[in-house]
Amino acid sequence: MKASTQVVWNRPVWIDHELDLVTTRTDDAAKMRLAVDLARRNVDHGGGPFGAIIVEAPSGRIVSVGANWVVAQQSSLLHAEIAAIAFAQASLGTHTLGTGEYELVASSEPCAQCLGATAWSGVRRLVCGATTADAEAIGFDEGPRRDDWVAEIEKRGIRVTLGVLRDEARRVLVAYRDGGGVIYNAFAGSGRV
Amino acid sequence: MKASTQVVWNRPVWIDHELDLVTTRTDDAAKMRLAVDLARRNVDHGGGPFGAIIVEAPSGRIVSVGANWVVAQQSSLLHAEIAAIAFAQASLGTHTLGTGEYELVASSEPCAQCLGATAWSGVRRLVCGATTADAEAIGFDEGPRRDDWVAEIEKRGIRVTLGVLRDEARRVLVAYRDGGGVIYNAFAGSGRV
Repeated sequence: MKASTQVVWNRPVWIDHELDLVTTRTDDAAKMRLAVDLARRNVDHGGGPFGAIIVEAPSGRIVSVGANWVVAQQSSLLHAEIAAIAFAQASLGTHTLGTGEYELVASSEPCAQCLGATAWSGVRRLVCGATTADAEAIGFDEGPRRDDWVAEIEKRGIRVTLGVLRDEARRVLVAYRDGGGVIYNAFAGSGRV
Repeated sequence: MKASTQVVWNRPVWIDHELDLVTTRTDDAAKMRLAVDLARRNVDHGGGPFGAIIVEAPSGRIVSVGANWVVAQQSSLLHAEIAAIAFAQASLGTHTLGTGEYELVASSEPCAQCLGATAWSGVRRLVCGATTADAEAIGFDEGPRRDDWVAEIEKRGIRVTLGVLRDEARRVLVAYRDGGGVIYNAFAGSGRV
């Protein structure tokens, strides 16, 4: 084994071909529609059924997008929210999004890892689509997450809105399972993809 | 703003100059000494006082090292444990360390984000030095982490050992605070650095 001295994550090229990242999204439904569209298209491209974006408020500018690229990019860290945060910070050249008014809009509620990452990211708001129950119903595990996670993250200055376009978001999860999508775990694959 | 289509993390060059990554470490104290040494030297190089390594058991081979590079590499994600996991998976070319018997050895107990990341990483064992109380005593926040986090992660097949070289690990935290090290938060800086 040669030790890697670099970790590189790439935004897949299909993103630019298939998605409109130029139009601003100022209402929650429009923002969530993009996150859910990312999740759906990511499955078509062989990834996991989760999408997330970072939006600048109040302009509605799309700062970054992410989807579950765990398997394709060989990193268990690469959940949709992690990708969106990482690409946003790389684009803005800062370790914190707390310099502005940024929102994380995710097609599902966060797992334990992504909840913690959200707390440190500097975003001021978290908007979620499918619920934890929806994700668990098809076999995904949120990991060692606090039951009172919403209150805990709001205490840290991050407003939370749940259930935006929940039915559309859930349909992507159900379609993934019905299509034979693999529900990974840490030892057979990787946690929640 | 030009949107980045790539996220790149680099292992700092001082690592190779200052640390012996060739000698195997088979006992917990030897493993932790390297993690604590990473934390201490990382502070000397302007980073946060946290270090972590991935070790292959039972050989004791050092697979990867990480330290808190949040500010230097402009990513709130880049806690020591996240770095160690990311570089290990990049080196092994896999999204899961569950293909072997790998251990994560960290100079402090994990924050909420790193606990979740550990659950998905595929490591079979987590070894910690300084305790949560030690980190909190100098002002760091573990984030929205479960109180019963040890039991929750052991339930997921990851054995946990706490308090290895605790005094040495804690001394790095205290020296960081006494040296005027910044205790970041999500909006002034970034979570726990």
